[in-house]
Amino acid sequence: MSTSLTTNTSLATKTLFIKMALSAWDIHNARINKLLDALSDEQLGADTATGRNSGIYLLGHLIAVNDGLFQILGFGERLYPQLDKIFVESPDKSGLEMPSLNDLKEYWKKVNDKLTDHILHMPEDEWFTRHTKVSEDDFVKEPHRNKLNIIINRTNHTSYHLGQLIYLSPKKAD
Amino acid sequence: MSTSLTTNTSLATKTLFIKMALSAWDIHNARINKLLDALSDEQLGADTATGRNSGIYLLGHLIAVNDGLFQILGFGERLYPQLDKIFVESPDKSGLEMPSLNDLKEYWKKVNDKLTDHILHMPEDEWFTRHTKVSEDDFVKEPHRNKLNIIINRTNHTSYHLGQLIYLSPKKAD
Repeated sequence: MSTSLTTNTSLATKTLFIKMALSAWDIHNARINKLLDALSDEQLGADTATGRNSGIYLLGHLIAVNDGLFQILGFGERLYPQLDKIFVESPDKSGLEMPSLNDLKEYWKKVNDKLTDHILHMPEDEWFTRHTKVSEDDFVKEPHRNKLNIIINRTNHTSYHLGQLIYLSPKKAD
Repeated sequence: MSTSLTTNTSLATKTLFIKMALSAWDIHNARINKLLDALSDEQLGADTATGRNSGIYLLGHLIAVNDGLFQILGFGERLYPQLDKIFVESPDKSGLEMPSLNDLKEYWKKVNDKLTDHILHMPEDEWFTRHTKVSEDDFVKEPHRNKLNIIINRTNHTSYHLGQLIYLSPKKAD
């Protein structure tokens, strides 16, 4: 086995993992986009279930969490830090004023477009390095807590709320 | 760079990525278990939202989908193939008779215990081979559609329904 062959294999393996994690991330963001296109403003303003989070709150929550990735992944300053207080630190119906639905839809698109741009330019090896929420000492012991792992976790976070947002769609006929 | 070093690096990368995917899988199954322990039979029998799937239906659905992994990952015959007709091919309230909640809780545990046993004994390289739902031709073009990718996708499936099952819990006090 030549050194170059094993080096290529290692590189191909990394490329494959990154593709797996980013495919799932893209698919789930696309499912949110499809749902946002399909729902009326009235539907998005409604609660996903009686007394539970509204569509607009969950949209703000997803934007704030995705926006947090700029710092966690070392992409630079986040775009809308003011959303954390309303959509992460406070529950729905807190009385805090929310941005309009139109503004939130625009923020969602801007955050994801800019994230995608950074993601596409990320050097492959960089994905397996420490993210800013884990200490250097902990990372030595738990090297799976890397930047790509954040993408896997945040994809699951999006899926979780997608399962709730889907309740804003009309029920299928039996 | 020596050959053995790059080989080790490639192996370490694979080990790390498998750990990332399986950690997320374990965390989300554990979150379902925690919820099942916390909810009463009455709560699990209720609908997750008005006119939406009940807790018992979603539990049956998650069992059937996890049980399907035995075949997809080449682990052998599935344990409860009869659940597909009730919980995958038919919607909730189809009129088909469901197993009791106690039986379903036992099936959930048995399926996941047996899956975990297979998962722990899976040779690392095997995770990056073709699963039975993708053709050999397609796999050449799309090598990311491997067995580990199924785990990533099914974890997102579990998250999606966890987001719905959580609505069976009492609302937090404001």
